[in-house]
Amino acid sequence: MTDLELAVHAALEAGKLLHSHFGQDAAVDEATHHDIKLALDKQSQDLITGILLGARPDDALYGEEGLAGNQDAARQWIVDPIDGTVNFYYGIPHFCVSIALRVEGEITVGVIHDPMVGETWTAVKGVPPQLNGRAISASPRTELEESILFVGCGKDGDALSIGLERFKKASLRARKMRMMGSAALGMAYIACGRLDGYIESRISLWDIAAGKLIVEGAGGAVDLHPVPGKPDVWSIVATNGRIPIAEIL
Amino acid sequence: MTDLELAVHAALEAGKLLHSHFGQDAAVDEATHHDIKLALDKQSQDLITGILLGARPDDALYGEEGLAGNQDAARQWIVDPIDGTVNFYYGIPHFCVSIALRVEGEITVGVIHDPMVGETWTAVKGVPPQLNGRAISASPRTELEESILFVGCGKDGDALSIGLERFKKASLRARKMRMMGSAALGMAYIACGRLDGYIESRISLWDIAAGKLIVEGAGGAVDLHPVPGKPDVWSIVATNGRIPIAEIL
Repeated sequence: MTDLELAVHAALEAGKLLHSHFGQDAAVDEATHHDIKLALDKQSQDLITGILLGARPDDALYGEEGLAGNQDAARQWIVDPIDGTVNFYYGIPHFCVSIALRVEGEITVGVIHDPMVGETWTAVKGVPPQLNGRAISASPRTELEESILFVGCGKDGDALSIGLERFKKASLRARKMRMMGSAALGMAYIACGRLDGYIESRISLWDIAAGKLIVEGAGGAVDLHPVPGKPDVWSIVATNGRIPIAEIL
Repeated sequence: MTDLELAVHAALEAGKLLHSHFGQDAAVDEATHHDIKLALDKQSQDLITGILLGARPDDALYGEEGLAGNQDAARQWIVDPIDGTVNFYYGIPHFCVSIALRVEGEITVGVIHDPMVGETWTAVKGVPPQLNGRAISASPRTELEESILFVGCGKDGDALSIGLERFKKASLRARKMRMMGSAALGMAYIACGRLDGYIESRISLWDIAAGKLIVEGAGGAVDLHPVPGKPDVWSIVATNGRIPIAEIL
């Protein structure tokens, strides 16, 4: 099994787990004003870890729910077991599983799987990405006025105030704004031309690692900048590679 | 066939039409900065009209794409053949068909169908509404801080400036904001506890006629006010009936 096949297998199995629990009461592990963690996040990551490290026992794994495997390994799986946990908890059928493989600092495989609509985005470094096995590309749109933009407002006060300012600027220029609640699906949607831009001031690597490879392979652009003083927290600007996003930042 | 069965049949047939065209290039009839009309909107309404008035030739029909049938009839079908047309056009799998029956001014039947996720909400006046045949109810949440709110920003400058002001207020209070792009699905989501409130300052009757019956039957509350000087344009505040929405209006 190739690394891509393995990642797809793990994402689909986790997707089945999430689908089977969708719409039922879910146990909350932790709740803040703007975020929620479920017992199912951990259960989904455990399932993915078992599949990935079962087949690749020498690899490392870095996920939203913690570390596993050999942390000195050059090969590291980056996992978000449920991206869009708040949606899942509230019963909104828009969430996904995101799995990337990073080898010596470079992302080489990316998989994003939406179990509710039944869509799987896949990418391997250097090969055009696919959605359900068909090649995809970012949109050809060049104007903000015809674009749909996703502005994330994050999970804390800082991210919210930056997000609100950008949201207002963007709303006045874009055709439409969307806030659907999953960063990884936002990236996947850019890669297949559904959205034209996604900006967020605070994001974790597991949210966007697979998405970065998929967007870039589809002709889009992804800028990541570390947030000072917050280890492994990033600000992100992802676009189709064509709209003048700087005008609303 | 009861009126409800007829409405469900029409919604599912239109849903099949939309599903079969999803992801393909769609012909644009008309585009403004914040909205789009497709040839498929008209095609979907024609299909629905054929089914409804074929079975009920004496009824009236009032849809986003125009009038049909006997306009003097006491029974009037209110139809949105694609709610979320911009999503459909951009390839975002979040849109629906909405069909209501109004008899002498009162909505008695409502159906909302999402063909991509495969969900159908149904309501008959005086009977608890259902999602895919199972009874639903609005959420029990009572605090804005635990709520998810949908603030619509409309299709023109007025609606946008009102929407932006409310969006900011709401963001500071709610757990999360969602703007998914379909008013009718927003209402349907309130009725089954996925969202806690939806506010928009400019909306048409076909967007929310079915949703109003479904939300109210599920224990929620819907306030509609006519917008002065704009015939059949409304401002809407829909909630689970419990959160103190007035605090952010």
